[in-house]
Amino acid sequence: MMKSLGAKPLIYPAPVLVVGTYNKNGTPNVMTAAWGGICCSQPPCVSVSLRKVTHSHNNILERHAFTISIPSEKHVKEVDYFGLVTGKTAEKFAATKLTPVKSKLVDAPYVKEFLLVMECKLVHKADLGLHTLFVGEVIDAKADESIIGNCGAIDVKKLNPMVFTPDTQDYYGVGKFVGKVFSAGKGI
Amino acid sequence: MMKSLGAKPLIYPAPVLVVGTYNKNGTPNVMTAAWGGICCSQPPCVSVSLRKVTHSHNNILERHAFTISIPSEKHVKEVDYFGLVTGKTAEKFAATKLTPVKSKLVDAPYVKEFLLVMECKLVHKADLGLHTLFVGEVIDAKADESIIGNCGAIDVKKLNPMVFTPDTQDYYGVGKFVGKVFSAGKGI
Repeated sequence: MMKSLGAKPLIYPAPVLVVGTYNKNGTPNVMTAAWGGICCSQPPCVSVSLRKVTHSHNNILERHAFTISIPSEKHVKEVDYFGLVTGKTAEKFAATKLTPVKSKLVDAPYVKEFLLVMECKLVHKADLGLHTLFVGEVIDAKADESIIGNCGAIDVKKLNPMVFTPDTQDYYGVGKFVGKVFSAGKGI
Repeated sequence: MMKSLGAKPLIYPAPVLVVGTYNKNGTPNVMTAAWGGICCSQPPCVSVSLRKVTHSHNNILERHAFTISIPSEKHVKEVDYFGLVTGKTAEKFAATKLTPVKSKLVDAPYVKEFLLVMECKLVHKADLGLHTLFVGEVIDAKADESIIGNCGAIDVKKLNPMVFTPDTQDYYGVGKFVGKVFSAGKGI
């Protein structure tokens, strides 16, 4: 029996993204966001939506660039902290002892200790209400060698990304292999 | 040591979404997509990106409406089939013996057997290249009673949604609880 939950955005799984930007004075900032995803294959684009009151929102508008890192489970404490406090008052890198790296390709920093990062140039934005949707073209993706598996592809079980559950607001891990895409459905 | 993977969109996890639309002749159609996510809290909005050549792309432009269902692991075969074939030539509901339901709120159908669905009205689109990004305002979200847990919230372990891994193109499940949002990072 289907039951109405009201008007709520409930995509499962939502990702856990760490957005890297430069503040007006040039200090590196990071925030955690879960409203985002891949939005184009060619050119390769990803999106992230941020509230207008956040420091990162203004930083993206000023520099037209951002990075998105995919943190691993082992950094859950630091990642949650990045979403708890604002870059307006906190120096998040100093507090967590994580290391900012200046991207050579876009005007934004990323977190050295995280194993996967995309360096993005702003190509589209849409003011949707509480959140602004930012679309970034991925200029380059970089992965730590430790998460690269067979055939040069990322091994999700080595990356250990987190899943965000929108309704209960929890972090989960990624579970067991279920099937191959464009293969599991053959024979119907 | 970070290694360049080239310009690739690599958000982990990506969701497995089933998009419901009506074809020009009124027959219900469904396709599977992984490029999408939540993009605004108020008004509640979700996005999905589709290639222009897909039937669903044209259907959304004509009806300004779509549904997004979150299928469970147990339907992996049907869900993969929905991404393998085109609604231009296949009647996907008939082939899988799944049941189309006409939404009472938007001009689009959804799959009766899937446990979570959002009924969406098109509010924004952006032609990004190979894919068009569609933003839908969620008019209502509906969940099967069997996946509603404590405090009326969706229990992710009862929903059992799938995770799509962009680089290797596999389906995974959701794993173990890692931590509470806005809690795990307290004390830094």
